[in-house]
Amino acid sequence: MSGFKSQLASVAADVEQGLDKLLPVPQGQHGIVAEAMRYACLGGGKRLRPFLVIETARLFGGDLENALTVGCALECLHVYSLVHDDLPCMDDDDLRRGRPTVHKAYDEAIAVLAGDGLLTHAFALLGSAAAHENPSIRAKLVCELAEKGGVAGMIGGQVIDMTVAETDRDETLITRLQAMKTGALIKFAVRAGAIISGANDSEIMSVSRYARDVGLAFQIQDDILDVEGDAELMGKAVQKDENLGKATFVSLLGLEAARDKAKSLGDCAKDHLAPFGTRAQTLKDTVDFVLQRQH
Amino acid sequence: MSGFKSQLASVAADVEQGLDKLLPVPQGQHGIVAEAMRYACLGGGKRLRPFLVIETARLFGGDLENALTVGCALECLHVYSLVHDDLPCMDDDDLRRGRPTVHKAYDEAIAVLAGDGLLTHAFALLGSAAAHENPSIRAKLVCELAEKGGVAGMIGGQVIDMTVAETDRDETLITRLQAMKTGALIKFAVRAGAIISGANDSEIMSVSRYARDVGLAFQIQDDILDVEGDAELMGKAVQKDENLGKATFVSLLGLEAARDKAKSLGDCAKDHLAPFGTRAQTLKDTVDFVLQRQH
Repeated sequence: MSGFKSQLASVAADVEQGLDKLLPVPQGQHGIVAEAMRYACLGGGKRLRPFLVIETARLFGGDLENALTVGCALECLHVYSLVHDDLPCMDDDDLRRGRPTVHKAYDEAIAVLAGDGLLTHAFALLGSAAAHENPSIRAKLVCELAEKGGVAGMIGGQVIDMTVAETDRDETLITRLQAMKTGALIKFAVRAGAIISGANDSEIMSVSRYARDVGLAFQIQDDILDVEGDAELMGKAVQKDENLGKATFVSLLGLEAARDKAKSLGDCAKDHLAPFGTRAQTLKDTVDFVLQRQH
Repeated sequence: MSGFKSQLASVAADVEQGLDKLLPVPQGQHGIVAEAMRYACLGGGKRLRPFLVIETARLFGGDLENALTVGCALECLHVYSLVHDDLPCMDDDDLRRGRPTVHKAYDEAIAVLAGDGLLTHAFALLGSAAAHENPSIRAKLVCELAEKGGVAGMIGGQVIDMTVAETDRDETLITRLQAMKTGALIKFAVRAGAIISGANDSEIMSVSRYARDVGLAFQIQDDILDVEGDAELMGKAVQKDENLGKATFVSLLGLEAARDKAKSLGDCAKDHLAPFGTRAQTLKDTVDFVLQRQH
């Protein structure tokens, strides 16, 4: 795993640098929004979604500069969803990546606008020539991110999470919820990496299935960490779900069965990569990383 | 003007029908967001922005079905900005188009998510084949809406409006503010109509200048109506700016000079259409409509 971890760190550094270059620069009387967008995006994070874009593009021999741009777009999109979900009228979180959330560091209005700005910027990057030289591919990425379970799915998932009563939550519902809230972007990440690299339909299908399983494993590990994790290491409040009486994979299945389920999803995820043999080693290692992560 | 008014009403009916067809249909446990998106978008409005897209496309012989899709995308974008600007943490408005604002009819979380959904849907529509058969044009529209003064400008304008002290507001600042907050979308409307119709650079420049002037005239008339208008006719609170001690073109220039300025901007706007002769009559009539409107 040490080779994998240095690869992840190296891509994360590229993404940090890419975002710094691609995000708007604060200037003029409205510079505070660009400042808040940068505050929310820069300064760390695992950058797992851009990593998946880039490593899937590498698997299919795609242009890695394009993949970095698409990965940065996806990170903007991911961060937008965090900024809005953290708002007082939503999940009301004060801490994110170990720092005050945007509405705490600035105010609610700036947090709404910075989120809007990041959502918009994601589409601007996907529509730009830096994402791909072929405009058909760019238009396809824009539509796929907006529609097929992308942002539309995330928004729907957040609504279900806020409105469905705890007593109505079973494993089917929270699996669906996860697929919408976090799974959609992980799926977009690998699909986008494959699409910009000219992968064929069957290849895109294989990595999509990989993403579906790794995304769900990721969420289960998240629920496990919420019970077992260290708040300081996580950079956010833990045991929040339990304190809110919120149904999670752990509360529904128990800790051991949740761990088993994550493990078996990880195995399935790797199986979907079988057609690519050793070329897919980094994506396989990503599964182990997701299951072993402590934050 | 009666021919013009029936033309405006006819396009507004097409836009209403187009939005009804193009907006997501509420279904499943998260249907409430789609419902709120429809609540915010449907049921009237002048549809001035889609009208400008369609009439500019007509001027240049473009495909009017494409123009309707682009117009609907722009209306989604416009309505997103209203929904978020009306939030309690922003302008805190209770009434819009004579009905409770989205956060009043639903709640704040749904209003944030419905706005996010409309912003996303605008890009989904622009990226779709229904906007234009040529994907280069679609990618160009996505970037232009997101960047060149489009959404980025609107967000910046909202920040300036919320943060710059009243004592620091002079005519230069509020002109700039208007260009960012409302002018950007009006400009996008005519540019998009021209771009999808294959207009050349000089033609695009002419209609852009027209849009700049008509957009500013529109804002000045808005300020005049805020002083003189009838709340019932307007469907929203009036004299709000005055009650808030907010600088407007009327408070800075006085009512008469504001009226003169709007009139002379209208004349300039029409002058920019001179190259197109009588073919541009509808766009010229739009200027008169903007200056004469009572709501």
